[in-house]
Amino acid sequence: MPTVHLEMLPGRTLDQKRDFVREVTRVTVETLNCPPESVDVLITEYAKDAWAKGGTLISDK
Amino acid sequence: MPTVHLEMLPGRTLDQKRDFVREVTRVTVETLNCPPESVDVLITEYAKDAWAKGGTLISDK
Amino acid sequence: MPTVHLEMLPGRTLDQKRDFVREVTRVTVETLNCPPESVDVLITEYAKDAWAKGGTLISDK
Amino acid sequence: MPTVHLEMLPGRTLDQKRDFVREVTRVTVETLNCPPESVDVLITEYAKDAWAKGGTLISDK
Amino acid sequence: MPTVHLEMLPGRTLDQKRDFVREVTRVTVETLNCPPESVDVLITEYAKDAWAKGGTLISDK
Amino acid sequence: MPTVHLEMLPGRTLDQKRDFVREVTRVTVETLNCPPESVDVLITEYAKDAWAKGGTLISDK
Repeated sequence: MPTVHLEMLPGRTLDQKRDFVREVTRVTVETLNCPPESVDVLITEYAKDAWAKGGTLISDK
Repeated sequence: MPTVHLEMLPGRTLDQKRDFVREVTRVTVETLNCPPESVDVLITEYAKDAWAKGGTLISDK
Repeated sequence: MPTVHLEMLPGRTLDQKRDFVREVTRVTVETLNCPPESVDVLITEYAKDAWAKGGTLISDK
Repeated sequence: MPTVHLEMLPGRTLDQKRDFVREVTRVTVETLNCPPESVDVLITEYAKDAWAKGGTLISDK
Repeated sequence: MPTVHLEMLPGRTLDQKRDFVREVTRVTVETLNCPPESVDVLITEYAKDAWAKGGTLISDK
Repeated sequence: MPTVHLEMLPGRTLDQKRDFVREVTRVTVETLNCPPESVDVLITEYAKDAWAKGGTLISDK
């Protein structure tokens, strides 16, 4: 039942996402003691003009 | 003031979304005792390569 | 796989939550065409000093 | 470390987003006493057929 | 309809939260051009053992 | 800048959370190519009467 949400900037490849969800699921199973099929991973990509740090959009840095 | 967020895979029609928000709002009003106009419903669709179950992206299943 | 998140103020009884998750799951299944066991519902209650409308905390209204 | 998420309908200009993240960061720093570079702001736009009020999609109003 | 979610560590006073929601609502109204009563602000506090940076819980730093 | 949110039922020990955030951060750094100090991990525990599967609260199963 654990659900993992990832928020990140765009730019990663499909292979990186594949690796991320596989590895995050593996360590979730190992550390939280749950069956793999109970783990959901959701990825949200925020465009560079939708994420700011220190008051400035990443697209303006 | 209740807010309902739906996370799902894409592929539903506009009519299905219409029905979903109408029906979810109706049962929210009935079970939580609140005025209909206080209920917000937000829908987020995750692409099949942005949702994984059991460590595998839905797009790879 | 649909997941429904409810955000609301506290004060509802356990029976109201029971009714809410049952009914929301039922209409989700009916309108989105998915098996009941694929539907997760999560409830988050925000204290009245953690929710503001129009710039004023609900606890101050 | 404070993170601010904004959910809104689309239609604002890039300049409005620039102003929003700058001003929200400024008042966050002032009221919560934290360094500006610790503040993240994320913006999610929901299409008019992905947000409902009172059981009706905004796109149908 | 804009909704602002704040995620932060605990430790702020009620007065700081009051100031935060008032000021964030004011700059949201000014920069996004919306009526004050349409702005919701929700605050979630994460305990220091529920937030990690660089792989270490804040409570362990 | 990647942020990972974990939603789970309560019941895990502090050591399990420590291991989770350390390992999730490690695999995030490895698969997404980012510095460790850019990774935030947030944990939200949902009580058993705040999470339902198949229309039934976990606390009623």
